[in-house]
Amino acid sequence: MWIQKEITLKPRDKGFHLITDEILISITEINQINIGIVNLLLKHTSASLTLNENADPDVRLDMKNYFDDVVDENKTYFEHTSEGADDMPAHIKSSLLGNSLTIPITNGRLNLGTWQGIYLCEHRNYGGARKLLITINGES
Amino acid sequence: MWIQKEITLKPRDKGFHLITDEILISITEINQINIGIVNLLLKHTSASLTLNENADPDVRLDMKNYFDDVVDENKTYFEHTSEGADDMPAHIKSSLLGNSLTIPITNGRLNLGTWQGIYLCEHRNYGGARKLLITINGES
Amino acid sequence: MWIQKEITLKPRDKGFHLITDEILISITEINQINIGIVNLLLKHTSASLTLNENADPDVRLDMKNYFDDVVDENKTYFEHTSEGADDMPAHIKSSLLGNSLTIPITNGRLNLGTWQGIYLCEHRNYGGARKLLITINGES
Repeated sequence: MWIQKEITLKPRDKGFHLITDEILISITEINQINIGIVNLLLKHTSASLTLNENADPDVRLDMKNYFDDVVDENKTYFEHTSEGADDMPAHIKSSLLGNSLTIPITNGRLNLGTWQGIYLCEHRNYGGARKLLITINGES
Repeated sequence: MWIQKEITLKPRDKGFHLITDEILISITEINQINIGIVNLLLKHTSASLTLNENADPDVRLDMKNYFDDVVDENKTYFEHTSEGADDMPAHIKSSLLGNSLTIPITNGRLNLGTWQGIYLCEHRNYGGARKLLITINGES
Repeated sequence: MWIQKEITLKPRDKGFHLITDEILISITEINQINIGIVNLLLKHTSASLTLNENADPDVRLDMKNYFDDVVDENKTYFEHTSEGADDMPAHIKSSLLGNSLTIPITNGRLNLGTWQGIYLCEHRNYGGARKLLITINGES
């Protein structure tokens, strides 16, 4: 069984955001799948997807501050500056964290660890609504 | 053909560890698969999986030291500190390196490069036994 | 439907290179697939694959300079130095960026974002021709 759909995530501020629930309501079809896989592709080059802690929001704040620290906007060697000071750092963060996830399905549900949630990492100041392509494959 | 199982890796010290063999003995069923894919999901937010050199152990030592260097425990802006000084860096390293791998199968075997092995990157001082969810899909 | 093949990419200089077209001409079979997935595995530990901007070449230049900056060759703690000063940094960059991608197929084509292209990130000074294993799964 193959299912594919593209959804539009609601716009979010620069930072790291827990989007597990927003994805789950879009893929209720997985309740028909016994074993399978969900692939998520964020169709952008200045935002990322990652799995990390779903509990303390300070983890998401600390991650934002860490990536702003190590990929700071003031690198003097940046040439790609015409789209704003936040753009080239956003491209780098996008590749450091990656913009795709593959998550297993077991008995109709995403099989994540107890503390794992899906993060949208918005690296731009005004990133807008991001498009997410969802591809599901499995057996019922 | 779909196969799925969860295994528990033996506990390891903080650092980078080659676990290819520990995984291979858990997925002997892949010898029935001609072309396919193995997805590995580490169900934790303070450890990672990555592919890297399977030969010189100094590569694993240097990787540990590099990540301890660039994600040091003394960032003054960290707010998520109640679980220990090693915890927030572990979350960051987990997302930098990722906690999932997708590896092709060819003629019943993992089809990795000659020098590629699977690393468990344990970012916590006492991470304990880590759970790994294995999902296999392929044709015989 | 499963298809698998190994191709050899043409050698490239150290840096970040757009290889979407070189891959597309190798996977014309995907035009038979309605919904599916392409997995790309670079069978090396000193180069990477990532998705990023396919337009301004300065993005690729800035990414090269950023990774040379944060994974510099002069870390005094590196022990794995016998294969050249560029080797250990190449291993680290390989894991930071990852050496595998999973890309959805829709209606016979890779379904990437408008600005997304596939990069080969060559981290060695003389990396040579890199082997890429392509595994395709989908329904017609």
